[in-house]
Amino acid sequence: MDSREQLLKRSVEAKEIYLPHISADPVVFGFDNNELRILLTKMHYRKQWLLPGGYVMKDEDLDDAVVRILKSRAGVSDVFLEEFGIFGKKNRSQLYFEDFDDTLFQKQRFISVGYYALYNSSEINPIADEISETCEWIYLRELPDIDLAMDHKEIIEKALLTLREKISYKPIGYNLLPEKFTFPELQKLYEAILGRKLNRGNFYRKIKTLGILKKLEEQRRGGAHKSPDLYSFDQENYTKALEDGLNSW
Amino acid sequence: MDSREQLLKRSVEAKEIYLPHISADPVVFGFDNNELRILLTKMHYRKQWLLPGGYVMKDEDLDDAVVRILKSRAGVSDVFLEEFGIFGKKNRSQLYFEDFDDTLFQKQRFISVGYYALYNSSEINPIADEISETCEWIYLRELPDIDLAMDHKEIIEKALLTLREKISYKPIGYNLLPEKFTFPELQKLYEAILGRKLNRGNFYRKIKTLGILKKLEEQRRGGAHKSPDLYSFDQENYTKALEDGLNSW
Repeated sequence: MDSREQLLKRSVEAKEIYLPHISADPVVFGFDNNELRILLTKMHYRKQWLLPGGYVMKDEDLDDAVVRILKSRAGVSDVFLEEFGIFGKKNRSQLYFEDFDDTLFQKQRFISVGYYALYNSSEINPIADEISETCEWIYLRELPDIDLAMDHKEIIEKALLTLREKISYKPIGYNLLPEKFTFPELQKLYEAILGRKLNRGNFYRKIKTLGILKKLEEQRRGGAHKSPDLYSFDQENYTKALEDGLNSW
Repeated sequence: MDSREQLLKRSVEAKEIYLPHISADPVVFGFDNNELRILLTKMHYRKQWLLPGGYVMKDEDLDDAVVRILKSRAGVSDVFLEEFGIFGKKNRSQLYFEDFDDTLFQKQRFISVGYYALYNSSEINPIADEISETCEWIYLRELPDIDLAMDHKEIIEKALLTLREKISYKPIGYNLLPEKFTFPELQKLYEAILGRKLNRGNFYRKIKTLGILKKLEEQRRGGAHKSPDLYSFDQENYTKALEDGLNSW
């Protein structure tokens, strides 16, 4: 079955199973080598990168749909996804399937709900589904040079913006860093999200004030330099900071 | 035409004009007498309060739809609305129209997009549309005692939660307070949004630090006590604080 036949077959099934006009797009951020990356997929049908999105079953809660979609399209499970925006421009999705006729389920107008998640990407090994040739981690810095379908660039930018806002009032890092990390690694994470360098001293003082870190007894071994101190998040204070926010009035 | 006939007639038109399965619900917050209130409507058909929501035209951007909906259902225009959440549980909307058969457009499953806005409610005089018997401002404190349809209580709570998070990293007040206001009035606004009392001294210091207020030369006249100082927002600093957020890393 070639990629066209595959999509036509899916269209017939989709009309039975899914609601028309509504889709969900997960933006999964990972952090590795001091850089952010996201999960993207590429279908056999077109050589364009896409978020691993999909449709909502007629009898399925929207929040359940996005979890199922991510599992089926990228092989990724146990990810906590949070809604961050809705993409509802009238012509956002139809062009992608322009060489099909208008009866194709996938070609109709879709309003898409964006969900994001933050993960330590070394723990997630994406697996492409049968309509895709690959599903993989792509560094944010590579995005300007790749061909992203539809408005998926805009969706990713909004997700990143949401993340930037979020770290001004919530702690971040729990799912993105390994259990034990160094202070410079935490700073690199914040810098990657904010897209700019931070002053080391200021950052150190601010983080200390929040009380969300625990300094461990051990140091990281190996390397020519002085062994750096290791930290982990203080579970209790981190959770409290998540609930209360970082800046109370 | 009774309320049932009205809804049946609307259903026929709606199938022509609107996308199925997607609706938008505006939560418009106003501030008056030191209290928050929201715009609610009540249809002839059922004696239950509702957000003044509606449907999305087949050839209309979602963001335009919610503006049109608010105008047509509540007579309110020139309101800046921001998306804050999506409500997609599978059985959220069908029960409301339970005494119609399933061919009614309004009775299908709807995934609804919540938008919120903040306004000085004395400047907005809501007008009910023809399917509604009233559209009016209801104080938040009255909500526990009124009968709200579907999951509209949950939508309002999520909007309020969003507002609470927002004031931890963005200035708020520009659309909610009159152009000239006293410091206690600003504090009352923050207290109304947060749902708790604030320490006057701490609040004063925090707000001063942000630099978003301009002290005016004039005082408010009238009243037996000392005339209170009047303030307005410093347009430039307020805009900058909106863009940068209140807490930079």
